[in-house]
Order: sequence, then structure tokens, then C-alpha cells
Amino acid sequence: MTRIVIVGSGAAGMAAASRAKRLKPSNEVIVIDSSRWVSFAFCGLPYLVGGEVKELDDLLYYPPSEFTKRGIDLRLGKTVVEVDRDLKRLTYVDNKTGSRETIEWDKLVLATGARSKAPKLWPEIKEARNVFYIVHMESGQQIRDYATSLGPGRRAVVVGAGYVGLEMADNLTKLGLKVTVVEALNQVAPRVLDPELASILENSIRSKGVEVVTGAAVEKFNIKDGLATEVITSKGTYQADMFVVGVGIEPNNDLALQLRLGLGRSGGVVVDERTLTSNPDVYAVGDVTEHKDLVTGQLVWRPFAQIANKMGHVAGSNLGGVESVFPGSVGTSAFKVFDTVAARTGLSASEAASAGFKPVEVSLEAGTKAHYIPGGSKLTLKVVADEKTGRLLGAQSVGFDETAFWRINVVASLLTRQGTVWDLFAADYGYQPLLSPVWDPLVVAARLLMRTFGEKPW
Amino acid sequence: MTRIVIVGSGAAGMAAASRAKRLKPSNEVIVIDSSRWVSFAFCGLPYLVGGEVKELDDLLYYPPSEFTKRGIDLRLGKTVVEVDRDLKRLTYVDNKTGSRETIEWDKLVLATGARSKAPKLWPEIKEARNVFYIVHMESGQQIRDYATSLGPGRRAVVVGAGYVGLEMADNLTKLGLKVTVVEALNQVAPRVLDPELASILENSIRSKGVEVVTGAAVEKFNIKDGLATEVITSKGTYQADMFVVGVGIEPNNDLALQLRLGLGRSGGVVVDERTLTSNPDVYAVGDVTEHKDLVTGQLVWRPFAQIANKMGHVAGSNLGGVESVFPGSVGTSAFKVFDTVAARTGLSASEAASAGFKPVEVSLEAGTKAHYIPGGSKLTLKVVADEKTGRLLGAQSVGFDETAFWRINVVASLLTRQGTVWDLFAADYGYQPLLSPVWDPLVVAARLLMRTFGEKPW
Repeated sequence: MTRIVIVGSGAAGMAAASRAKRLKPSNEVIVIDSSRWVSFAFCGLPYLVGGEVKELDDLLYYPPSEFTKRGIDLRLGKTVVEVDRDLKRLTYVDNKTGSRETIEWDKLVLATGARSKAPKLWPEIKEARNVFYIVHMESGQQIRDYATSLGPGRRAVVVGAGYVGLEMADNLTKLGLKVTVVEALNQVAPRVLDPELASILENSIRSKGVEVVTGAAVEKFNIKDGLATEVITSKGTYQADMFVVGVGIEPNNDLALQLRLGLGRSGGVVVDERTLTSNPDVYAVGDVTEHKDLVTGQLVWRPFAQIANKMGHVAGSNLGGVESVFPGSVGTSAFKVFDTVAARTGLSASEAASAGFKPVEVSLEAGTKAHYIPGGSKLTLKVVADEKTGRLLGAQSVGFDETAFWRINVVASLLTRQGTVWDLFAADYGYQPLLSPVWDPLVVAARLLMRTFGEKPW
Repeated sequence: MTRIVIVGSGAAGMAAASRAKRLKPSNEVIVIDSSRWVSFAFCGLPYLVGGEVKELDDLLYYPPSEFTKRGIDLRLGKTVVEVDRDLKRLTYVDNKTGSRETIEWDKLVLATGARSKAPKLWPEIKEARNVFYIVHMESGQQIRDYATSLGPGRRAVVVGAGYVGLEMADNLTKLGLKVTVVEALNQVAPRVLDPELASILENSIRSKGVEVVTGAAVEKFNIKDGLATEVITSKGTYQADMFVVGVGIEPNNDLALQLRLGLGRSGGVVVDERTLTSNPDVYAVGDVTEHKDLVTGQLVWRPFAQIANKMGHVAGSNLGGVESVFPGSVGTSAFKVFDTVAARTGLSASEAASAGFKPVEVSLEAGTKAHYIPGGSKLTLKVVADEKTGRLLGAQSVGFDETAFWRINVVASLLTRQGTVWDLFAADYGYQPLLSPVWDPLVVAARLLMRTFGEKPW
């Protein structure tokens, strides 16, 4: 019998647990987490805030009982405080009773996720009841409850114009609050979109009544009687009734540091294709890890749910005796804010240049359906390729329906196979007037690229 | 100066004309067509019938004047009656005046499209004013006018449950007619979907009030006083006030036969990657051609608009002095009928077996969005891979939103690069709860396939 101890009951940890147990029932699988949740979906929290999701429990893929039924030993509400890599054991404390327990492992899986840097960056917010950031699933409920208690017309400031910030701004607006987003960098979605695509998104957000202030780095919050009253930024002071910090997460690597695992530049645990760390008895999965970017070959930190799930599956397979690999990712991400959908995959031109490629970039605006069909909308698409090889390097898109997301998924799948500009032209996308234009924007982008690369593969 | 004569002013012909002229303005480019239309979109005709498209002219990408402006010599309303391959010349007749003209070519492009077999199969319909099939753009207007003149509650029979037939049934229903679809084979969409996926589509069509009769081969139409009154099929007789034949097209290869060009099994003109026929001075593009299937390597006839446009582009480039290739297609096609979207790419399992592969097939039903987001729908997805190599061979999907189409486009793009089941797993599809589930159905299909193929690439 092998004892597998998994720290972290999020999607990655539970995927690993389920699979390790199912493939090899003789495995003893113990999962420890300080929360009372399993298999939770942080990505759904903004929709809990806005009310589209009714109950916190709706966000769970399965209730804890499902995993118990699968033979997994769940130890929730317990915080791991110490790990000993030589004795291969760890100690956890029960959050309520304070009782300690020490257990040994044959194999350890770190699935400790990411954490907000907010309380480190602005320690004053710890005393404020109306400054929120995502700590755990309850955070979403707390934001919803507080916003609802304020009621329509009151003011919220959201710090950060990344995924979480913008999705929170959308959902707080739906609750009737007047929302201001402050972002330290000079555009919204700074790590996702190039400036000209970001400005389409920004205009769309503004048109919904959200105030957007870019280039505004948060210096401090002013607190009075346990409530923040205003946030002071490099660009001015913004008063509000509540504040949501949607920026600044980092790998939750405390245990990894104690285990002296190899870490990458982000502080994430470096894993190989098997999701194995520098310690042959320790796997790591999900938001706490760094893994390989399939375009550059470099290590990257990508705290995305779809990656975490796949890594959990792969770790669980390997622990279940079935060799499995997670080759890496290409950095596909997407969001939907109000009626705008934005997505990206691979590298931007400037990221490509930094990585040693010679990027060629094309950009276009095109309709999403046949020109004669009412109801289509405009999509802006950017594609980057390498001048030396014709390889596709990345793409970005902003539009007003799901196809902005799906066209990026098509490029993502070509990136997985080192697809070229000629593949982007040749790929046989279907055509139906209600669904796409006969010259799909992807093919139009390929044609524009072929002006540089030539019409046929070298 | 090179004289390029293009027969056929559809999308493929006009794409070739525009590009050959633009890249090399010294080219003399003459386009001859018996219709008065250029760059027309047959795929839009069902929406003209239903009224979503208001005017026949809306279906044109550009008016004829645009091409004249580009320096193209348009000769519309003229029918080519004779070609002489040795003297490299052809004769055409003006449809109105009957005057004949003979011109020589340096390079000829056949873009003569496809034609309906209906009048050959059922000669009696030539005397009937209420039996329609697509001859040219006017056909759509005629169907609309006749259906509108009948008014709601009257009956229409549509022959054939392929793309055209089902889209016509949808749009005639929108006009208030009671529609019966008769199909000779035992399912709807017989060349597109496997039976179990077709039955989802069929149920959806029936639920909209359309009567669907499969296994009903049309034997003859009964005509009285210039009007068809009923159609006699192998399964019974169906009366109606109008009849639309949406089945049975073939390459319009009369000129190709006169030129003694190499033809494929369908009667389509065989072209190479340059779109060149067996005659070094004759190109052929679009629905009149056969080209290479990128999965099997065999010749196929695929009269699809997106392929015709690409072939036109490639022929035009080559004629403009820029070497260009159309490597082939993988058979991606899609339709939307009422609220159902269906798509396929590559081979079905039975087609794969016929082509010498050893197909492994998985099928699943999954939600199109995160489980906790309201408004998602169910998607049925089938993926086929080759047991010997792990290569993806094809996929089919039926669902109730555009993602059924886009997930197939993702598989299509992997087919272009000989992607495998492991690529289907590894490809980094983005995730956003409003847009997709965290385990995308594509990844779930890959996981199911990996039960047979193993978890990692061989």
C-alpha cells in the first residue's frame, strides 16, 4: 500500500486524488485542506457576486461526500503547519480545536494554489471590514453580502483591471453599484491584451458606466473605524463604500520552501512533464507550480483552472501507475466582461521579441458572420508569427460574441503542433452563413501574413 | 501580355480574377458567365427564402461595377458553347441577342461550379411551375416569391435532408408553410452525421412542426395543368402546393469534357496543389473540381464555398506570378437548422475503416459552459482516431449553439497538422465559466480516447 498525501482540495488536488485512487484502489489517498471546500471553482466567484450563480455550493463540482464515497480520506478545516522532507511527514492543526496531528507520506502532492498579495502590499486593509480580496470560497459570498447590504447607487472601487478585477467590476455593476476600476499600468487587461485591443475593451466597459482609471498605482487605503473610506493612488484619491482587490496573486509556496523544492522566478514550484518536483517523492499541481511554455520552452507560472485540472489528472495517473504527461501550455486565456469577449494565446509581438523570435504581426477587423446575415458583430484579431520559420507564435482577439474566444482556441491548437502561417490558411474551417463569413478572419489573417512570408510553405 | 479567360463568375472565379489582375496588372482578365451575377453566395439563398436576407443583391459580395473598376473584363449573360483545347479558344453566345463570339486564351480557368441533377432525375418537373431547385441566384427569389404567394398554412415538400434541404425546410417554415422533408436514405444529414447524431437533429426539426420522412426515395412527381400536385416516393405519396428539390448536385463539367481534362469519380476536374488541371494551360477552381483530402490523401469532391474561395485565391496568385498552393481539405462542414448546430470534419468511423484506417471512436454528451452558469446547453461530440498511430481522423458534433461548430473547427485545425489524441488533450484551450466548462468536451473526448491509446504519446 502506498500512502499519498495531497495538500490542497481545489480542482487540481481533487483531480489527482480521484484518479490516483480510481486507477489503483490499493493507494491510500489523504487530502488535507484548511477550508471546508473541495473541488472549488474560484473562477465562478464573480458570478456569485453578481447573482448569476445563486449559491456558493453551486460552484462545487462535487460535494465532499462524493470523494469520501470514492474512498478518499478528506481532512478539511485543517492547516498544514510543518513538513519534514527527510522524515517524509507533515503536521497539521485543526482550525477549530487546535489539535495537532502528524502523518507520514510515501508520495506527497502539493496543490496549495495561489494567494493574494493584497495584505502584504497594503497591511492596513487587515483592519478594514469593507476591503475584500479572494482568500477562499467564502470571500465571494462576503463580497456579495456586503455589496447587497450597501444597495444600489453606492460606490465600489476595484483595484486591478485584470481578469478578476474586470469580472468583479461587471458583477458589482449588475448589483447596482457605481464602480471605479483603478489599474497601476497604462491599460486594462495589461498582461492579456496589447494596448489597442485593450482600448476596445476599455471603451466597452466605460460605456456600461464603469469608471476606469489606468496608470493609477495604489499607495494606501485610508481606514476609519474599521472601514476603508478611500484609496490613495499615484493618480488621485478615490472614495468608496467598499473595495475589492483583484490584483496581485502569487504561488502559495510556504510548504514548498520548507521542502526546499526547486522554484522558478515567480516562486512557483518547478515541475517536469510528469508534474514531479525536484524531490522524487513530491508532485506539485495547479497554481503553485511553474511548467513549460510550449512556444518558448521556458518555465512559466500560469494559475489557470484548465491547466490545474489537467495537471491534477496527470499527477493522479502517474500515482495510479499509468504513465502520463502534461507537456505544458501556450498561455491561452479568455474573459467576458459585460458584452465583450477577449482572448489570447501564445506570445504577443513584444513577448516574442523578448524570447528571441523575430515577430511579424498582423491585425484586422472583420465581421463574425456572412456579411448578408443580420446580427453579426465586429471582431478584432491579431496574429503573430516568426519571420525566420513562419511558425505561429500567438494571437489575440476582442469581440462581442463567443467566436472571439473560439478563434483563439483554433490558433492555440495550431500552436500545440507548431503550426505555421500556411497552416492557418490551409486549415479547413467550416463555413455556414449564420455561423461565420466565408473568408474567416483566421484565413484573412493568414493571407495578410503571407504577404510577408510568401504564399506557399518554404 | 497574358490573356486569362475565366469561365464562371461565382466566388471562385472572381477571387481568381481579382487576384490575377491585382498581382500582375499586365494580365488581361476576361470573365464569362451565363448569369447576370458575380461573386454570388448560393449558401445565402435559404435566408433569402425565409426573409432574413431582404434582397437578392444583398447576397453579392461586390457589385459587377467593382470588378470592372479593378480592370476585369466582365462578360455576363453569355453562355460558353464550345471550347477548342488545341486552338486554345472558346465560343460564347449572348443569351439575349444570340450573337456569337470566339476568343482565344493564354490561360483558361474553369470555375463552372455545380448543377442540379433534378431535371435529369425527374424530367417531368420541367413542365411544373411549382417545383424548384437551385439553378442560379434567381432560383432563391423564385422560391421566396412562390412561397409568399401561397401564404401561411399551405404545404411544401422538400426533397432531400442534406444542407440545402434542411435549411430550406427551416426557412419555408418561417414563412408559415407546413413542410414535409422526404429523404431517400434512412436518416437526415446522411453524408454529414452518423445516425445517432442525426437523430438529435431530426428530433429537433420535428419539434418545430416539420414532418420528416426518411427512407423515402422519390420516384416521380404527378403534374396537372403545369403544377405538381404530389410526389410519389418508395414510402408513400405526399401532396403539396410547392416542391423544393434540395438534393443531387454534380460538377458542371461540360466544358471540362470538351477539353478532355482528367476527371475524378464524381466527374469533377482533378487539380493539383496549384489548382492546375491535366492541361498545363487550364486551371480549375471551386465546385467543378476534385482535390486532395488531407486525411486520406485521396481525391474528393467537396462543393463548399470556403474551399472555392481559397482555390480561387490560389489560382489567381499563380496566374499573377506568385507561387501558391491549395494543399487540400479535410471535409469540414456545418449547418444550422432552427436552433440546432451540426458540424463535422475529417472521417467518420465507417469512412475511416473504408480508407484503410483502424478507427477508434468515442462519443460523449457534455455541457457547453461551466456547470454553475445558467444558459448552457448540451453538446454531443464524437471523435475518431486511428488505432495504429493515435492520429486524429475526424469528429462530429451536434448542439444548440455555435460552439458545436467551433469545437469541430479546433479538431479541423489539428487534422491539418496530423494531430494526435494526445494533442487533443494537450492543446491549451482557454477557459472562462461563461464561455466553456473547465474540462472542455474536447479534452474529455481526449481522455476517453486515452483509455485506449494510453495517457502519453508513444
